[in-house]
Amino acid sequence: MSETRQQAERARQAFLKLSADADRTAILKDLAEALRAGAESIFAANARDLEAARGTLAPPLYKRLMFNEPKLRDVVDGTLQLAEMPDPVGRVLETTELDEGLTLQKIQTPIGVIAAIFESRPEVVAQIAALAIRSGNAVLLKGGREAAQSNAAIGKIIESVLERHGVAGAVQLVSTREEVFQLLAMDDLISLVVPRGSYDMVRHIQQNTKIPVLGHADGVCHVYVDEVADPEKAARIAVDSKAQYPAVCNAAETLLVHKDFPAREQLFAALRAAGVELRMETGFGEEFLDYIMSVRVVDSMDQAIAHIHRYGSAHTDAIVTENEDAAKRFLREVDSAGVYWNASTRFSDGFRYGFGAEVGISTNKTHARGPVGVDGLMIYKYLLTGNGHIVATYSGENARPFRHRRVS
Amino acid sequence: MSETRQQAERARQAFLKLSADADRTAILKDLAEALRAGAESIFAANARDLEAARGTLAPPLYKRLMFNEPKLRDVVDGTLQLAEMPDPVGRVLETTELDEGLTLQKIQTPIGVIAAIFESRPEVVAQIAALAIRSGNAVLLKGGREAAQSNAAIGKIIESVLERHGVAGAVQLVSTREEVFQLLAMDDLISLVVPRGSYDMVRHIQQNTKIPVLGHADGVCHVYVDEVADPEKAARIAVDSKAQYPAVCNAAETLLVHKDFPAREQLFAALRAAGVELRMETGFGEEFLDYIMSVRVVDSMDQAIAHIHRYGSAHTDAIVTENEDAAKRFLREVDSAGVYWNASTRFSDGFRYGFGAEVGISTNKTHARGPVGVDGLMIYKYLLTGNGHIVATYSGENARPFRHRRVS
Repeated sequence: MSETRQQAERARQAFLKLSADADRTAILKDLAEALRAGAESIFAANARDLEAARGTLAPPLYKRLMFNEPKLRDVVDGTLQLAEMPDPVGRVLETTELDEGLTLQKIQTPIGVIAAIFESRPEVVAQIAALAIRSGNAVLLKGGREAAQSNAAIGKIIESVLERHGVAGAVQLVSTREEVFQLLAMDDLISLVVPRGSYDMVRHIQQNTKIPVLGHADGVCHVYVDEVADPEKAARIAVDSKAQYPAVCNAAETLLVHKDFPAREQLFAALRAAGVELRMETGFGEEFLDYIMSVRVVDSMDQAIAHIHRYGSAHTDAIVTENEDAAKRFLREVDSAGVYWNASTRFSDGFRYGFGAEVGISTNKTHARGPVGVDGLMIYKYLLTGNGHIVATYSGENARPFRHRRVS
Repeated sequence: MSETRQQAERARQAFLKLSADADRTAILKDLAEALRAGAESIFAANARDLEAARGTLAPPLYKRLMFNEPKLRDVVDGTLQLAEMPDPVGRVLETTELDEGLTLQKIQTPIGVIAAIFESRPEVVAQIAALAIRSGNAVLLKGGREAAQSNAAIGKIIESVLERHGVAGAVQLVSTREEVFQLLAMDDLISLVVPRGSYDMVRHIQQNTKIPVLGHADGVCHVYVDEVADPEKAARIAVDSKAQYPAVCNAAETLLVHKDFPAREQLFAALRAAGVELRMETGFGEEFLDYIMSVRVVDSMDQAIAHIHRYGSAHTDAIVTENEDAAKRFLREVDSAGVYWNASTRFSDGFRYGFGAEVGISTNKTHARGPVGVDGLMIYKYLLTGNGHIVATYSGENARPFRHRRVS
């Protein structure tokens, strides 16, 4: 058995304990304290990673690699927030009385063993560990090589807390690149893969596993400015959607403008003033991740919606209009994880949605869609309690009818 | 473009209409009426299928191929029941006020285009079509060759109803075996695959697609008779779980008996009297689908749970006990789609659970688990309504805080 498979088996066993009688709230509180107490060891390890990366990593990646006091504070606060959340494990979602003395309950449960694969950002180790503990899932984490020392320091702190609570192995780091391929092949032990990284990285994972992958490869978001849009709102929303932070998945890549919108030039001028290069009638479906926006003038809202369905990535798309009927139709018809009316696409984010923490943003059509928090790491099981009930009673000629009374 | 791809593109376009402004309830009512009115054409086509299959199909498959008046009645009743259900599309699942005038709604939506692949049973065409229409999804159906005439007759009736409502293409039959491989490769157009059939068929599909597959390959269900089980209940539940209908996925395959359960011989005798062959300490994890049961005497409930996790398929597992603490621990710790206390595993079924109709039973750990009804064919999207709101307001030094007030 490979070492990675042994890790996955160990994670599976730890999951069974963590999801059953472990005190997940106490673990999270201890984890927050241990991370705070271990600050110096994490910062020292991070300094070694930064030293090794100096000059070899592009500045944005180098910045993401940094783990400093503000990031630690965020991680500790986030962990404590999760500790304060009501325990999602075992929550009763529905109760139905099938017949007298025969009660069906739908109960929220964790998924099992999750593999999380990400680049740079050492704080992701602590964030995902905390989300996994809150949701009762075990997790195997594969971070980037550039953050190896930082990740190891954080992983060591997490492991010592888990050990104290009898659930050692519920959060484990895997370290080599070969191990990723091994993880992706273990569809008998791993129930979900959560990648966070570049388009190429996510796409590669999606193409190389049979395990469900929760995430998104690209974010090709649109702002559609309708005929009767308010010019000031249109400019404000387009500028924020594109230029507030262009390097992220919820930044808009394409501006669609109704041919009869009267303030088109004013809109373009606002974008250009924010440093945005406009590419007219070209680049549709491209994720620029930069101060570049493709622009198309459309004849109708129908054409705008058809454009979004054809070129978009079903991430987040917005309409700017003062026409409520048009807005409602847009909200109903656009088949994306987020559909917005008179608001910036940049709101598409777990923290802004109020989830407290997020695993990532999903453009999947099953399981979880949009920003994913603790809920997206949960599934359910059905508990049936009887008193000797058998199916023969409800079958054949003298079949007793079911009651099927929904209790909650 | 292949013909199958054209069909999938057409289904995608039909989905966008069906999920938006189509009157799905009226379609279902018309469909029930049209199926009733088309009875003779379906029966005639079915007679041709039966004639062609005589002598070549095993008796259980031949029986499943038959589409007669009682089956038509079930299908028509089921369609009318779905018509009476509240429309699940657009249901508001949650509402959160992010800030003044900025409201987030989580709305239930269909998934998109679904591929359903099944064997024999022509009624499945009508059942899955009705479920798809209710849930606003388009569906591509691939039935068995042996039912080709029956399926085509039912498909023709469905198509004429859809055409009348302007959503032609929302339900389509695909007919050749090559088309299945083409369907499984179209992960850009098809969002979910629902297979219903043999272990080999489902396993083959799971191994040959990147599209999420909702279903189960096998059902290795267990009955665990605890030390303090009531002997009469134990015998009744074990016999029903195994012998009420052994050829199905929710029939029990293995009996686990606590070593100190006093009425062991009485339990075995009851099973043998029901025609069950007991295989002692062998055959664990095998799906017999017959009057055969493997038996293991265990030292403890922990050993029983470990056995279930090792050999089971996480479908449905039951404990028989009068000890409430033991039962609660079993219900909590066993990681299966259905976990039962003093009830037969045979209850694991969408109709018995009160779902009205079922797509199948899922042993997945994501999206939907256990018997799957309309709910399992739904996902959600987030609608955000603002009034010119931008993220810049909530960022940086003078960031305005979010309100995050859960409204519903």
